Amino acid sequence: MSENKLDEFAPIFYPKTHAVIGASSDMRKFGARVLQVSLTFGYRGRLYPVNPQESEVQGMKTYASVKNIPGPVDFASVAVPAQAVPGVVQECLEKGVKAVQVLSAGFREAGEEGAKLEKELAEIAARGIRIIGPNCFGVYSPDGGITILPGANLPKESGTVGFISQSGGYAIRVPRRSEGLGIRYSKIVSYGNACDINECDLIEYFYHDPQTEIITGYIEGVKDGPRFFKLLQEVCRKKPVILWKGGLTKGGARAVQSHTASLGGEEQVWDAVFGQTGAVRVTGLEELLDTTLAFIHLKPQKGRRVCPIGGGGGIGVAATDSCERMGLSVPVFAEGLQKKLMSIVPETGASARNPVDVGNPHPPPQMLRAVMETVAAEADIDIIIIDELGMTMVGPPGSEPMRPPGAARDMVQVPVDIRNRFGKPVIVVLPVESVGTETLEEEGDRRRVCDYYLEQGLPVYLTLERAARALLNFTGYHRRNAVMSS
Amino acid sequence: MSENKLDEFAPIFYPKTHAVIGASSDMRKFGARVLQVSLTFGYRGRLYPVNPQESEVQGMKTYASVKNIPGPVDFASVAVPAQAVPGVVQECLEKGVKAVQVLSAGFREAGEEGAKLEKELAEIAARGIRIIGPNCFGVYSPDGGITILPGANLPKESGTVGFISQSGGYAIRVPRRSEGLGIRYSKIVSYGNACDINECDLIEYFYHDPQTEIITGYIEGVKDGPRFFKLLQEVCRKKPVILWKGGLTKGGARAVQSHTASLGGEEQVWDAVFGQTGAVRVTGLEELLDTTLAFIHLKPQKGRRVCPIGGGGGIGVAATDSCERMGLSVPVFAEGLQKKLMSIVPETGASARNPVDVGNPHPPPQMLRAVMETVAAEADIDIIIIDELGMTMVGPPGSEPMRPPGAARDMVQVPVDIRNRFGKPVIVVLPVESVGTETLEEEGDRRRVCDYYLEQGLPVYLTLERAARALLNFTGYHRRNAVMSS
Repeated sequence: MSENKLDEFAPIFYPKTHAVIGASSDMRKFGARVLQVSLTFGYRGRLYPVNPQESEVQGMKTYASVKNIPGPVDFASVAVPAQAVPGVVQECLEKGVKAVQVLSAGFREAGEEGAKLEKELAEIAARGIRIIGPNCFGVYSPDGGITILPGANLPKESGTVGFISQSGGYAIRVPRRSEGLGIRYSKIVSYGNACDINECDLIEYFYHDPQTEIITGYIEGVKDGPRFFKLLQEVCRKKPVILWKGGLTKGGARAVQSHTASLGGEEQVWDAVFGQTGAVRVTGLEELLDTTLAFIHLKPQKGRRVCPIGGGGGIGVAATDSCERMGLSVPVFAEGLQKKLMSIVPETGASARNPVDVGNPHPPPQMLRAVMETVAAEADIDIIIIDELGMTMVGPPGSEPMRPPGAARDMVQVPVDIRNRFGKPVIVVLPVESVGTETLEEEGDRRRVCDYYLEQGLPVYLTLERAARALLNFTGYHRRNAVMSS
Repeated sequence: MSENKLDEFAPIFYPKTHAVIGASSDMRKFGARVLQVSLTFGYRGRLYPVNPQESEVQGMKTYASVKNIPGPVDFASVAVPAQAVPGVVQECLEKGVKAVQVLSAGFREAGEEGAKLEKELAEIAARGIRIIGPNCFGVYSPDGGITILPGANLPKESGTVGFISQSGGYAIRVPRRSEGLGIRYSKIVSYGNACDINECDLIEYFYHDPQTEIITGYIEGVKDGPRFFKLLQEVCRKKPVILWKGGLTKGGARAVQSHTASLGGEEQVWDAVFGQTGAVRVTGLEELLDTTLAFIHLKPQKGRRVCPIGGGGGIGVAATDSCERMGLSVPVFAEGLQKKLMSIVPETGASARNPVDVGNPHPPPQMLRAVMETVAAEADIDIIIIDELGMTMVGPPGSEPMRPPGAARDMVQVPVDIRNRFGKPVIVVLPVESVGTETLEEEGDRRRVCDYYLEQGLPVYLTLERAARALLNFTGYHRRNAVMSS
């Protein structure tokens, strides 16, 4: 792999000039919306609308052809009917445009005629222009000032996660859902049918990109299996690659045919890919984001011995079931440690064998602190999980509502202090207690507490099961890397 | 099984008089809180605080012993230290109290000495008084005006779902999370260590209880395996029994020991229970509520051929993967039907092989209506799933925010109309698009749409995976019942 990709792809991620071919003022059209999201997102380079039928689009001077634009053009978005795309891209090549993103659909996924058009596109690319798409939503690169469709309101600040998506829908859904979780992206590429630039090119780019520390992707099929396999083996040694492979079931593979017409591949082949390259396998959007959150916030960690701390015996049973089902271990504490913990928690209604049951979901903050200090000092425990303690729940009858800032603030602070003092990973499970419209304020409190933990670098999850799965994925990556490098 | 249980348990669920033994004004104590939640919840019978040290508690005349109460006492709550419990319950027996709930902990779950106390309790029960607990949170029965700890604010209206829980924590968490989902309970019993009344007695009661149509439970261990097995076989023919068995993993079984000291039993034994009785197995709180929602809203349904309708090819791939992984089928449509559907959806960027991809998450309502009508008329499709269409999402740039009441209202109405007209089950997947604090208003919109669907009898789920699991559980029950009765 060469670092050339960084230079080669610079016009895509940091274009100084951007032509929008098919630009219009009719907001139902892709070409109009590309122009509009670029303006709204605050693109700082030069933007050139192109449309042979218009002299002005959205108040901007418009060119009949890309060839009429004065001066060089780095990058072009193409949103014209499929039949017209090859001609337009050929003009871009002749103009010296470095790369285009073809947003139009109607290619390989639409049947034989579309496949022919796509083949033409690939041939034009081979003559010296790079193509993203067709059948995609384009590129988001906040530092380059460009965004995906319809991503006018995506964050303008960049992060350390790269995301490639064969699906346009997920290319926009993933960053939207990431926003509230504080996950920020270096670049996102919706690459659609991948007639030229494919998943391997993009993973290779992210491998070299100093801005990208975690590589994530939604992939339906792979163009060049052996290259993909070899590339992942190399990349995973340096940066984690978290992949959601869509279309692994029989019906799912059929749906892939209708969508991006990729060869989905058998489940066994993908078992081998994940088993032998170190790429982290996830099976849905939630798991993708949950796992990414662990990689963002936790230091490399191989150990899987966890201590869930909750309030209520049933919660502890469920926590243990969830952890062990996922492959984490909840080791029984030595008797001395149990005794020490039992001297902190209430004599009845609590337990300290691991998990630790502090008796009820609203323990006094100083009790939680003493329990956490004792557990964090334990060499045999790798990870502490605060499981459904009532950080934001209304307290028992007669008590004041436990809302931060207020009575619960001290309890909220405890896990942060312990993580800071002991450096051990602390995970917080903070479920939505009620989905009723009348408890929206409570949900606001919950989200504020989540925000605080995420700011402080403590991953937060909605359920313990999801936390456990993310931790399994995370520790699995670091276990493998430890073996590979030993 | 006899219908006697209805009469026998009437003093528990509809007590005319209720003594609170251990009542106090110190809100940190269980006895104080039992009295307080009874008052707040609006108990209409006579409430008698009992405490030998006080003459007045929370403004009410207080008795030194249950025996001093004038007139008969139906039911008593016991919240005194474990060592004092047998004496107090013996007094209740002598007074002629029909049943007690022992909220105190410190029995079998706490070691040898506690086990002795618990044995004493069982012996007293055998002499003519029924006991719930010890180590429990008590009974919720809205029509009887009594509630669980700390359930002062639980709904006062009753529903058709009965819930028994060996865990006090879940006895309160389950109805709290149910509230926003519109799930209402006939009765909830936190039965703890079950020294007398156990899971079998309660399931038998629900079997006869005309108010209860769906029986649900969180169970850690069973006292009398053969009775439990036989009972479930009989009950499941008439009413669905949905059970979450906690402590199936090795560690989970250990946690059960610390909690209710039940014999958890092996995973294989429980496989046989679920395989041979028709009880519906769930493995967590979310799945319990998701499955209950399906049983509340859907008519008996064996068919598992689903049609997911979404906006975006990737969503369709993921939907198919989720459905097929769970055991639902997404059959390919016949060519004629595909053509018909393709004449409705956009020519490019959509697909109609099943799943149906309407092109984007914001289709015009009339397009969604035409697609749904076409699919609903199809005899080979049993269930329609509306998958992540943007009922509440902000529309594309340039459009108005799609908030009901407003532009999205027409789209929201379509699934309801189709269900009404065709009588076919329609499920709606409506995810939380963003968990940020700044999008709380959006979450309010989402919840309002959810409320509307639930009012109209359409089950709503947060993810398609959860919807698919609930449908699998639901159809599994009815498949088995069809076989058993044929």
